[in-house]
Amino acid sequence: MAAVRRLEECRERMGRELDAVVDFWLRYSHDSLHGGFFNCLGRDGQVYDQLKYVWLQGRQVWMYCRLYRTTQRFHRPQILEAAKAGGEFLRRFARVPGAGGGWKCAFCLTRDGKPVKIQRTIFSECFYILALDELAKVTGDKDMQLEGNQMMEQLVYWVQQDPSGLGRPPLAGDAPANNMAVPMMLLCLVHQLTEGQGPDVGAKYRSLGTWCVQQILQHIQRNGTAVLENVSPEGAELPGCQGRLQNPGHALEAGWFLLQFSAEQGDQELQRTAIDKFLEVPFKDGWDKDHGGLFYFLDVDKLCPTQQLEWNMKLWWPHCEALIAFLMAYRQTKKPELLQRFFQVYEYTFSHFPDCEGGEWFGYLSPEGKVALDFKGGPFKGFFHVPRCLHMCESILEDLLAENAQSDPKTEEFQG
Amino acid sequence: MAAVRRLEECRERMGRELDAVVDFWLRYSHDSLHGGFFNCLGRDGQVYDQLKYVWLQGRQVWMYCRLYRTTQRFHRPQILEAAKAGGEFLRRFARVPGAGGGWKCAFCLTRDGKPVKIQRTIFSECFYILALDELAKVTGDKDMQLEGNQMMEQLVYWVQQDPSGLGRPPLAGDAPANNMAVPMMLLCLVHQLTEGQGPDVGAKYRSLGTWCVQQILQHIQRNGTAVLENVSPEGAELPGCQGRLQNPGHALEAGWFLLQFSAEQGDQELQRTAIDKFLEVPFKDGWDKDHGGLFYFLDVDKLCPTQQLEWNMKLWWPHCEALIAFLMAYRQTKKPELLQRFFQVYEYTFSHFPDCEGGEWFGYLSPEGKVALDFKGGPFKGFFHVPRCLHMCESILEDLLAENAQSDPKTEEFQG
Repeated sequence: MAAVRRLEECRERMGRELDAVVDFWLRYSHDSLHGGFFNCLGRDGQVYDQLKYVWLQGRQVWMYCRLYRTTQRFHRPQILEAAKAGGEFLRRFARVPGAGGGWKCAFCLTRDGKPVKIQRTIFSECFYILALDELAKVTGDKDMQLEGNQMMEQLVYWVQQDPSGLGRPPLAGDAPANNMAVPMMLLCLVHQLTEGQGPDVGAKYRSLGTWCVQQILQHIQRNGTAVLENVSPEGAELPGCQGRLQNPGHALEAGWFLLQFSAEQGDQELQRTAIDKFLEVPFKDGWDKDHGGLFYFLDVDKLCPTQQLEWNMKLWWPHCEALIAFLMAYRQTKKPELLQRFFQVYEYTFSHFPDCEGGEWFGYLSPEGKVALDFKGGPFKGFFHVPRCLHMCESILEDLLAENAQSDPKTEEFQG
Repeated sequence: MAAVRRLEECRERMGRELDAVVDFWLRYSHDSLHGGFFNCLGRDGQVYDQLKYVWLQGRQVWMYCRLYRTTQRFHRPQILEAAKAGGEFLRRFARVPGAGGGWKCAFCLTRDGKPVKIQRTIFSECFYILALDELAKVTGDKDMQLEGNQMMEQLVYWVQQDPSGLGRPPLAGDAPANNMAVPMMLLCLVHQLTEGQGPDVGAKYRSLGTWCVQQILQHIQRNGTAVLENVSPEGAELPGCQGRLQNPGHALEAGWFLLQFSAEQGDQELQRTAIDKFLEVPFKDGWDKDHGGLFYFLDVDKLCPTQQLEWNMKLWWPHCEALIAFLMAYRQTKKPELLQRFFQVYEYTFSHFPDCEGGEWFGYLSPEGKVALDFKGGPFKGFFHVPRCLHMCESILEDLLAENAQSDPKTEEFQG
């Protein structure tokens, strides 16, 4: 029963952390004057910059709604109201005219919603869609859902047909590449848009989902010994630093996206590939044998990742993704080595990232595991990776423990 | 005589390092097939990426010419030919059509010169002009000089009249700012274009030089206790992280630009301001009292520089700029505390950055001073800061030692 007790402890800790993290953002991040959320929160929650980042606005709306919709103790008016206010801010200010007449989403807004910067990528739009769709699921707002679907159509067109609406000038030396983030985000959106929507919507997005999976699998390179962040559109390795770049946390995130898809489709081969190539391989190369924790970036030829001075820092989100990935993989397969990996990441994560004084988690540690930047929210750290991880892990742990309770304790003991 | 001996040792070491650094780049960086220079050189000189960065192409041409033109032992055909080949590559490939019909320079090219990326800033153009003007000074090529001057006119127009040719869409929340790099680069170009050109050219650029100085001085903020990287066009502090950002090495570089200008103009007040505000203040805040070395970025309110995960790393170039700045200030004023600062930076620099095995200097150290990235050339580290520092310091040290030799040793001993 030791393993059961350990899982219960994990679930209890995850739940407690989630409550604290939700409280932190409810308390400090809401802008009651202009709407939306402050993203830049210092160690104790103070707002150190009023800029509002659209990725994080969208993610916070999504996360609030997801908690409200799926977890009894978060089904509170305060959380729904906050999500609605965030959605209203997004719809009012995030959408801006794009190159060539379409719509784009800004990357960054002033406190009162004026656009500061527009990225020439698809990611602001992705989180906009994620937010609108989840909010529509909670509120039943059909207009909002339609708007999300329309943005999705435009996004798929940019990715699969013609990227010129993104505003990047075509350059002879800028060869097209398959950046893993793109099919990952689209696969995440396919999951979002089809979840609980019945067979018609499922059918509508089936071929896109399959295409995303195929695009992600192209990133398995070097005879299956590495996942590379950027490959050619045909799935060949690209030359130079760009081609050799690895991001272990990102590969692990792709891993659990694939596990989720494989479970929906009943695709056992994809499940094996996800575990072998997107969990085990990045973990083996990405785990720091000296100091523990996952490196942020690596070069597959063991060179320095030149463009990323912070390559050997330990960031919160790769650890969040690793926790989800290994626990989900264990839940699907019950292979004890996967639970061991989960515990290994759990130990590092919970002994390094949570801030027992100021609340929430630190995001950026030195290679040796000391806090290097002590803010709680910044341009890329918001109310997303930490609560998504805690929420998903708590839920998987509940399922595992419930399964165990129903089974014969003599035969179904966890092999942790 | 101990101080004299120490300065002689410094001069000797600087000269020896400069020879080794020149040899390194002559040996490993030349692309005999497509012309131009490889920028991405590993620890032992191996090319780990074939991309060619226009900033670094221009800087290498400039540096070769400057060494060839001003230093007897570098007045060698091999160096001139390398500079010419680099200039040819630049003129053939770096210039690309810009937004609205003008010319831009690409930021990055493929090995054979195809544009990969164009930045929406002025810096590629700055280094393009620097290269062409210095190469024209060496070769006497009037067409080349004219082309540099024409690009300079366009650049000044972008900065002072209308930035739309840079290609950035106007956004309501993207308030104009005075980024210190812009007037610094322009002042550097004014120095380049007027140097040795007689009174007519001097008169042509006088008001621009004065304008640059005034723009740089706007960055003195908080009642003279800080130099901030970004201020409003009117010289007021900007809100948020952008407004609080400090870059001590950059301020020190601005300091010696101002010292150079003050010497040319005989402006003693500017000299005092340069030393008090752009040398002493950034050095006081920027020097790491625990581990030594200059921090890369700081936040004036002692918060974390959110956008710069590498804020507390020790980079080679701020130390190069500090060496030039303190030695130049000492040369101009003979104040002993400035020579002490020079020695302090010298000790850290020469005990941490040079690689006695692979040659050249490491560029990126951990906060504790350990090598974090071991390449010798990368997208922002080329044949520029190290040789410029060594060349300028060697030359200033020669002047100081020559002055001393001519003076009465009893009264003119260095107060080092």
